[in-house]
Amino acid sequence: MTAFDDLMSFQRETEALAQIAGRLGWDQETVMPRGSAEQRGEEMAAMESVLHARRTDPKLVDWLAAAETPDAAGNRALDLISRSYLKNARVPAKLATEIARVTSVAQGVWADARENNDVAAFLPTLENVVGLIREKGQALADGGDAYDALLDDYEPEASGADIAAMFDAMRSRLVALREAVLGAAHQPAALTGTFPQAGQMDLAREVADAFGYDWTRGRLDLAVHPFSSGSGNDVRITTRVAEQDPFNCVYSTIHEVGHACYELGIDQAYLLTPLGQGVSMGVHESQSRIYENQMGRSRAFTEWLMGRMQAKFGDFGAASADAFYATVNKVHRGYIRTEADEVQYNLHIMLRFDLERDLVAGRLGVKDLEEAWNTRFLGDFGYAVDKPANGILQDVHWSCGLIGYFPTYSLGNLYAGCLHQALRQAVPDLDASLARGDARPATDWLRARLQQHGGLRMPAATIEHACGFAPSAEPLLAYLEQKFRAIYRL
Amino acid sequence: MTAFDDLMSFQRETEALAQIAGRLGWDQETVMPRGSAEQRGEEMAAMESVLHARRTDPKLVDWLAAAETPDAAGNRALDLISRSYLKNARVPAKLATEIARVTSVAQGVWADARENNDVAAFLPTLENVVGLIREKGQALADGGDAYDALLDDYEPEASGADIAAMFDAMRSRLVALREAVLGAAHQPAALTGTFPQAGQMDLAREVADAFGYDWTRGRLDLAVHPFSSGSGNDVRITTRVAEQDPFNCVYSTIHEVGHACYELGIDQAYLLTPLGQGVSMGVHESQSRIYENQMGRSRAFTEWLMGRMQAKFGDFGAASADAFYATVNKVHRGYIRTEADEVQYNLHIMLRFDLERDLVAGRLGVKDLEEAWNTRFLGDFGYAVDKPANGILQDVHWSCGLIGYFPTYSLGNLYAGCLHQALRQAVPDLDASLARGDARPATDWLRARLQQHGGLRMPAATIEHACGFAPSAEPLLAYLEQKFRAIYRL
Repeated sequence: MTAFDDLMSFQRETEALAQIAGRLGWDQETVMPRGSAEQRGEEMAAMESVLHARRTDPKLVDWLAAAETPDAAGNRALDLISRSYLKNARVPAKLATEIARVTSVAQGVWADARENNDVAAFLPTLENVVGLIREKGQALADGGDAYDALLDDYEPEASGADIAAMFDAMRSRLVALREAVLGAAHQPAALTGTFPQAGQMDLAREVADAFGYDWTRGRLDLAVHPFSSGSGNDVRITTRVAEQDPFNCVYSTIHEVGHACYELGIDQAYLLTPLGQGVSMGVHESQSRIYENQMGRSRAFTEWLMGRMQAKFGDFGAASADAFYATVNKVHRGYIRTEADEVQYNLHIMLRFDLERDLVAGRLGVKDLEEAWNTRFLGDFGYAVDKPANGILQDVHWSCGLIGYFPTYSLGNLYAGCLHQALRQAVPDLDASLARGDARPATDWLRARLQQHGGLRMPAATIEHACGFAPSAEPLLAYLEQKFRAIYRL
Repeated sequence: MTAFDDLMSFQRETEALAQIAGRLGWDQETVMPRGSAEQRGEEMAAMESVLHARRTDPKLVDWLAAAETPDAAGNRALDLISRSYLKNARVPAKLATEIARVTSVAQGVWADARENNDVAAFLPTLENVVGLIREKGQALADGGDAYDALLDDYEPEASGADIAAMFDAMRSRLVALREAVLGAAHQPAALTGTFPQAGQMDLAREVADAFGYDWTRGRLDLAVHPFSSGSGNDVRITTRVAEQDPFNCVYSTIHEVGHACYELGIDQAYLLTPLGQGVSMGVHESQSRIYENQMGRSRAFTEWLMGRMQAKFGDFGAASADAFYATVNKVHRGYIRTEADEVQYNLHIMLRFDLERDLVAGRLGVKDLEEAWNTRFLGDFGYAVDKPANGILQDVHWSCGLIGYFPTYSLGNLYAGCLHQALRQAVPDLDASLARGDARPATDWLRARLQQHGGLRMPAATIEHACGFAPSAEPLLAYLEQKFRAIYRL
């Protein structure tokens, strides 16, 4: 055994333990009895304590110094282990364990508070979480910017300043498009009717099939907040059902299938290595978004979807395939980020990005967060939040300690715009497949160009390798303008 | 912090990690995608490696030497940690990890083989498992008897010789009763009809309620082989459904509720300590058995059950409450241990006990196991095994590496007989409650006398403390003879 082999063998166990921790998270959000939350907090803390000890094990330093790397993948593995070591070594074990314990319990508190629209019941817990995450950010930053340090967990090489600049560049064209669309004479019909849960779950399975989700290595369950979970050969997805809004279930499912196809598509040679998972949340989100939006909300795919919905639910009043396509893409006044249309989605992100950056910088206190949210929302969207479940309590992220995560959603949208441009050039007859409910040619292309490579390259390099050009906002903005001007007959 | 506090704090994390490992087992048997089995094997091995390292950590020796114990519970905790250390230290880490990896994969191989009645597909895997477990037994025994050493994992203070003697003492009276019953002029009617899955699952929830199962700290799912899983505040049960045989679902559920009530009833002060789980498999089985048999198959409870089944499934031909009680308790010619009646159940155990003892001693090879099983079955039961799923492939245990476990089922039956005698004296009007579908007065008595104490006392002392007398086979045999002679009008 060489130092490299010893290191990779140790790392393989660490990756396996991390998969277990992830699966506990899945369990907690889908099947765990509510009364088990406190005990689960201790279990998660114990697991985090083990993982933290391994990620900061002094043996890593010796192995990293002595390891000879056989190839580029080996080099990249060493680089990722080294980055992980340096970051984890900066966070005291006690703090890491405490974060695991507190956020595990916080998710239950959040779910109850959201159900009861009770902000006061959540704030002390959120205060605790934000305090611990700030402490972690400051430890990681080591004198630098705490928010940037947190962001690096989700999007290596990104910075708050770059993201703010990106948002500034996108904002004016998105706002102009939104105002044009909402002021247009032609407005698509909204969907009406009731769509029973069992039929929606059947439909969710069909759309997952359409994108090539591998059921032998995954499963679909219900959760309050849809998510995908796991790497390698156990990658599970969740969805939710609202009987008045089947699009919620359909597009949550396609979104999570995108995440899952990325993980399931990674080269098996990278299984349980540092390269064996998506390289960043932004690149992950590019997969979920291109599945959900550029393909799932396309004219071709929605024609197939309309047929499947008619087969399951009978005539629900869609006048034509064109009208149904417009209904799917209707820009509506809503509160919920995960239900937002493509034009307004990024406004939701900008709001959260600014608020959480202020929280970490200490410019905003948790006790003032609801007012800040509601004021900003009124300004950005033009109407007031009607209840906390539609405002500050809508997302699970902060209760999980995921601060620095939100902007990666918009970065993913940007990357998806680039990938879509390249995909359409590479697979010119994609629409013919999508109209048959078969998106697998797109999954095949994405797998070959991007998914199989897992964590081999840095995020922007991953996108550039796949597309053949450096990522920018232009393809996304051009796509949105063309699509929505056509739908709204502008 | 004293040495005792340090030790208990370290132990608390170990117990939390052990709960995680147990929950992975639940996941594997209920919800895991089939294609994830190999990866799960690596995950379980990594977890086992962590647990083994903690259970053999040299720090334990220092702490154990220095710890001052505050009370009897503390003394017992030290004793249990010390026993665990001494045992685990005898098993090489590599062997423990390999057993975890191999048995994790073996369970999937077994499930496939059972489904396809394909013994040949299972034997190489079983050979591997038996070889590893023999190696473990020999390491544990350190020159003594390997089977006794394995048994000690499930039933401390028991020995193969004592159990063989116990079986000899019970056998003649059980065989005499069985022959009298099967030769009786009066034979109860068998149940006929079809009972849809959804109704059976509803009924399973009702019977779990009847015994006071705490849904806020548990859940019910389907599994190939019913089991209960977890300690503390997350104790889950599983059942199975055969549409021609609703008793399978009902009595599997009550059985697992018995196990779960034991774990859920343990004093919260013992949570995540060595005392925070059932003391042995035999004592555990006494709980599942007294719930399933002495209460669940009593005249009083079956009258309530008949009413609930008629409400759910309509008239299914039960002539009277007496006739239904006799049908529930009908002694039938069957193949499956978990479906066996109270009279014949222990014959199934004696068969497995003798075969696995021979396997461990090297007197029997895995390649000859099917023939040995079938020959012994024909001799004990009077008819031949018709297919492997009804013979050698019926139980999950050996694929999990659970060798030395089976005899604890019969020990549990014996303990249940003792507890039932004491329970009936303490709660003389229990039948009135059972006839209303309310077994909670029994759960209350069992909790106060036995369940709350968890691992505080050794197994036999636990039973003696609860009953007020030393355990013996006499109460069980007297109960069986009285019950079945009455049903069969002998």
